[in-house]
Amino acid sequence: MSNDILVGIVMGSESDMIAMKKTAEVLTELGIGYEAKISSAHRMPDLTADYARGARQRGLEVIIAGAGMAAHLAGAIAAHTTLPIIGVPLKSGELGGVDALYSTVQMPTGVPVATVAINGTANAAYLAAQILSIKYPVIRDRLEAKREKTLRELVEKSEKLSLELRQEHPE
Amino acid sequence: MSNDILVGIVMGSESDMIAMKKTAEVLTELGIGYEAKISSAHRMPDLTADYARGARQRGLEVIIAGAGMAAHLAGAIAAHTTLPIIGVPLKSGELGGVDALYSTVQMPTGVPVATVAINGTANAAYLAAQILSIKYPVIRDRLEAKREKTLRELVEKSEKLSLELRQEHPE
Amino acid sequence: MSNDILVGIVMGSESDMIAMKKTAEVLTELGIGYEAKISSAHRMPDLTADYARGARQRGLEVIIAGAGMAAHLAGAIAAHTTLPIIGVPLKSGELGGVDALYSTVQMPTGVPVATVAINGTANAAYLAAQILSIKYPVIRDRLEAKREKTLRELVEKSEKLSLELRQEHPE
Amino acid sequence: MSNDILVGIVMGSESDMIAMKKTAEVLTELGIGYEAKISSAHRMPDLTADYARGARQRGLEVIIAGAGMAAHLAGAIAAHTTLPIIGVPLKSGELGGVDALYSTVQMPTGVPVATVAINGTANAAYLAAQILSIKYPVIRDRLEAKREKTLRELVEKSEKLSLELRQEHPE
Amino acid sequence: MSNDILVGIVMGSESDMIAMKKTAEVLTELGIGYEAKISSAHRMPDLTADYARGARQRGLEVIIAGAGMAAHLAGAIAAHTTLPIIGVPLKSGELGGVDALYSTVQMPTGVPVATVAINGTANAAYLAAQILSIKYPVIRDRLEAKREKTLRELVEKSEKLSLELRQEHPE
Amino acid sequence: MSNDILVGIVMGSESDMIAMKKTAEVLTELGIGYEAKISSAHRMPDLTADYARGARQRGLEVIIAGAGMAAHLAGAIAAHTTLPIIGVPLKSGELGGVDALYSTVQMPTGVPVATVAINGTANAAYLAAQILSIKYPVIRDRLEAKREKTLRELVEKSEKLSLELRQEHPE
Amino acid sequence: MSNDILVGIVMGSESDMIAMKKTAEVLTELGIGYEAKISSAHRMPDLTADYARGARQRGLEVIIAGAGMAAHLAGAIAAHTTLPIIGVPLKSGELGGVDALYSTVQMPTGVPVATVAINGTANAAYLAAQILSIKYPVIRDRLEAKREKTLRELVEKSEKLSLELRQEHPE
Amino acid sequence: MSNDILVGIVMGSESDMIAMKKTAEVLTELGIGYEAKISSAHRMPDLTADYARGARQRGLEVIIAGAGMAAHLAGAIAAHTTLPIIGVPLKSGELGGVDALYSTVQMPTGVPVATVAINGTANAAYLAAQILSIKYPVIRDRLEAKREKTLRELVEKSEKLSLELRQEHPE
Repeated sequence: MSNDILVGIVMGSESDMIAMKKTAEVLTELGIGYEAKISSAHRMPDLTADYARGARQRGLEVIIAGAGMAAHLAGAIAAHTTLPIIGVPLKSGELGGVDALYSTVQMPTGVPVATVAINGTANAAYLAAQILSIKYPVIRDRLEAKREKTLRELVEKSEKLSLELRQEHPE
Repeated sequence: MSNDILVGIVMGSESDMIAMKKTAEVLTELGIGYEAKISSAHRMPDLTADYARGARQRGLEVIIAGAGMAAHLAGAIAAHTTLPIIGVPLKSGELGGVDALYSTVQMPTGVPVATVAINGTANAAYLAAQILSIKYPVIRDRLEAKREKTLRELVEKSEKLSLELRQEHPE
Repeated sequence: MSNDILVGIVMGSESDMIAMKKTAEVLTELGIGYEAKISSAHRMPDLTADYARGARQRGLEVIIAGAGMAAHLAGAIAAHTTLPIIGVPLKSGELGGVDALYSTVQMPTGVPVATVAINGTANAAYLAAQILSIKYPVIRDRLEAKREKTLRELVEKSEKLSLELRQEHPE
Repeated sequence: MSNDILVGIVMGSESDMIAMKKTAEVLTELGIGYEAKISSAHRMPDLTADYARGARQRGLEVIIAGAGMAAHLAGAIAAHTTLPIIGVPLKSGELGGVDALYSTVQMPTGVPVATVAINGTANAAYLAAQILSIKYPVIRDRLEAKREKTLRELVEKSEKLSLELRQEHPE
Repeated sequence: MSNDILVGIVMGSESDMIAMKKTAEVLTELGIGYEAKISSAHRMPDLTADYARGARQRGLEVIIAGAGMAAHLAGAIAAHTTLPIIGVPLKSGELGGVDALYSTVQMPTGVPVATVAINGTANAAYLAAQILSIKYPVIRDRLEAKREKTLRELVEKSEKLSLELRQEHPE
Repeated sequence: MSNDILVGIVMGSESDMIAMKKTAEVLTELGIGYEAKISSAHRMPDLTADYARGARQRGLEVIIAGAGMAAHLAGAIAAHTTLPIIGVPLKSGELGGVDALYSTVQMPTGVPVATVAINGTANAAYLAAQILSIKYPVIRDRLEAKREKTLRELVEKSEKLSLELRQEHPE
Repeated sequence: MSNDILVGIVMGSESDMIAMKKTAEVLTELGIGYEAKISSAHRMPDLTADYARGARQRGLEVIIAGAGMAAHLAGAIAAHTTLPIIGVPLKSGELGGVDALYSTVQMPTGVPVATVAINGTANAAYLAAQILSIKYPVIRDRLEAKREKTLRELVEKSEKLSLELRQEHPE
Repeated sequence: MSNDILVGIVMGSESDMIAMKKTAEVLTELGIGYEAKISSAHRMPDLTADYARGARQRGLEVIIAGAGMAAHLAGAIAAHTTLPIIGVPLKSGELGGVDALYSTVQMPTGVPVATVAINGTANAAYLAAQILSIKYPVIRDRLEAKREKTLRELVEKSEKLSLELRQEHPE
């Protein structure tokens, strides 16, 4: 599995790259192969449709789509494939990402998009990994190792915090 | 002009028909030919794209798209034609139409949708007529006649109202 | 596969059952085995944690959690397993489900919830099926058959609509 | 056509000029003549009414109105002409432009405003061009050329992005 | 003073009459003369402007304007007179009156509208009376008498409530 | 303790009684004495201030204030006592209770209000009991007994649900 | 009149002074006497009540109250006097002033607050002047002179703008 | 009492420490002992549950939980103890803290969270003190002393303000 490209990352415009890099980083950290593309639902509609239609055939198993404003990208891809599609509403424009959240999550019956938080670019990768984990036990193992590592780090930070707050406010 | 079909009305689902009927009625009242279709952006993406791509060729000059929730329909059509597209955000689901409004109006640069009010089905027809009026003087005349009629009716209602309120609260 | 229980449906309270029944119906229609439970994150926290912790072991591959208001259920389950968790924000209380949407989707890094629309109970089932489809080709086939059926039905409805609108407004 | 002034750009205050310049630039790029004015609905109501009333006579075919807060400008102009009016809700004040969006889009029956995104100043010009394109084939040609150019640029950027992300995260 | 018409009540459409009747009733109760009109800012713009321009001349001292959706009426009147204008945002359409609230209250510098609550039709009358009270001591007296009456009534209700709750839940 | 009146319930108007009855019922169920009053912050300001000022003296230990719209009641009471004040934002008017929520929770430094959910009338009583439980062990015992009872009931309902869903969709 | 203090300006905290200075400046420009105070509804409730109760007696005719967050100040003053109270919702905290807007405008029947825009500090002064203008003709004259001055300035700016945009985009 | 740790401060992540320090400072100022921990509801669910379950036993009487986004921390703690829990919704992510506010305040019946303002970290401490004051008279005394000090300071600032505004705008 480790050499396969299992995840497609698509984004609605060039400016989304800064946010979506985080998605790529987490997938790399979890050892999951991916490919990345700009594919605007409105300015490249035919390429977007082609990409989605051929995705399962080419071996992709999850597609992550990040877009802002009237964020139709995840939905436009979901319309052309029955693969699980993860939508990342990106903050952009003047509405703080609520527009993108509503445009991504409020999909009609039969064509769902698995939506994560506004700018939840890391979580899109974690969700892709959790989906893949039902098929690839090695990904489950990596996810569980990662969770334990996070837990250990937080416990350490918590201990440090207790000390700090105490030192600053000695009774 | 009067026998031509100049306006395409598309709606995202069967349940939008009740609302979009008003659009058809106003176009009929203004003597503008139209055709109506269900064309879900997510459940009929290829037919929707084909419809938009061929629209100008087939003589359409304005397309009105009504959809609710993650209302991608107007945007999906706008992606495939340079005709003016009017989007009607429809109330549906639990967010009162704000989701549809944001999904319709917050379009990216280069692919605008002319958005009207939530459930603004009559105004979609009036806007289509105003657009057509730059080319067809007869439509301009009908619009102006309609405005004057509305004005006269409101003046009458206002006079009736003055009387009513006075009678109920005589000093 | 067909006899296995692959999907867990949990809901925050008894009153969520009416909405979540739709999830069960769609899974049944797609031939996917499920189990259903009430498991309030706040009033049954230990049982909820136990359920999530043992889920993968017991053969579950996707968990669907529906809850309203401060909808912590999907997140509380996601905290105890690396299985993919689908969250359905349910309308309940006075905020139209926006509270449940935010509480479900805005998860911290490392613990994502795949969120669907407010009251998107059918789509939770479709998303579960799409996730399972990366492992079980038979589910992919059923999803694709269902999509084609939906398409055919919509095309028929569209044709009927064209006729109806024309008859009511003959030129 | 190319020497005619077909589009009027009006804005509610001096401070809107920075945003509305973009509208002028896109019209210039598409070879469409325009005129620009400050015309506050509230502080210059009579001049605004006069401007709108005489607009069609003076050869204007579309008016673009940009305003913030209780953005009445587009509506005030629409009240005095049956030309198509495009409203650009501008971000200004403390509500992020939602106030201007609602004030612009929620027009009463008979007096529509074709609303674009908050600060959608470029799209106001594209929409004006799409409206004019039903009468002037040369504008349709320019719009289509522009779309193809945008498509080519995005395809190139997408290819560059694929390379970049790969180089940073070599497997 | 008591025979003079001091307050003008205007409303954006016929359907606003049910709400605005309350305004008339409270003015009547306080013995303040008024006149009432429909005067749509968008469908009767010239009559609305004329009405506002001549208002002070004709003896009006406060104007109350009630309108829904893109509620420009209060602002359109304020643009033509320096009399104090009270705006009542009316619930109408699908946004619960937030659109009308923003359109009424977010006025630009120099042209304020004294805004009351959504559907605050009674309070519009009380506010008009409070404004008039700085000139007419008799109105101040009536307002103060009314407040004392309200206070006495509430105290009585409170006592009744204490008893009721106690009887239903005896210890 | 059981005969003492430890909790004051105040509400902004007569119409809030239907909602606030639930608060009284839960307190009764937990064996906690209370008194109930109407005390509008705006229409009975002096009585409200007096009530708050004397509350601790008269033996009250928690005050629960329910109010809608610009819900100042909890804050107005908090301004006059250092007792813990619980605010219940009530749905009323056209904003679904968000106005009351913001007016209740967004208090300035030094004068907090312990805010519960919109219409969270039962929870106001539970919170009062939890506060009192730090002083009265018997209330802690009753709260814990109540929680266990709720848990048992939910487990039973969950089992019934599992059966029901299975019977309706037998495989 | 010119030496009298007719307007009281109160603000909820020290930090509101920067915003409320604008109110004082506009009153000064219009030659209207004022006094200014900090008077927190929650941290100085008795002084606030005293201030409101004695206001009419001491010759005040309008009170302007600016406050942020759970902005109860205007309402707390309105509860103790029948003078017209103008509320300025101030942006402060994390909700952009919507909390202050709702807390200021959504007042109960009988105790209205004349609300202006979020941070509408200049307009609070203009509204006070418009209210006073029904009693003091000299203030009406100054308001009308100010409006004409504004109009002339805007016309000049509009002409400059037309030139500028033309020079930058010569055809 | 003064040496006891009565208050537990928990926060969802390391980045919340900057905000929550204020809580610790106010408690210190009021002479109330506390302990502080990071305890993510989603990344440390078992430790969070253990902490809550043992809290009363270990002598804690109030727990303050600060968290952002889908802020489940306060609710997760409330699920495991009948102690009073104070929730501080923290601004974090792109929704300005409204997500955290809804996730904290909209709790189901039986498991309330005493919610303070978004980023209301100081008020969380004041509320904890007010709760403790029903049991520890010394805390009541300190709270009342603090309120009087605040009042004196505000009165001084108000006097300074009156002078300043007058000097800048001499008549």
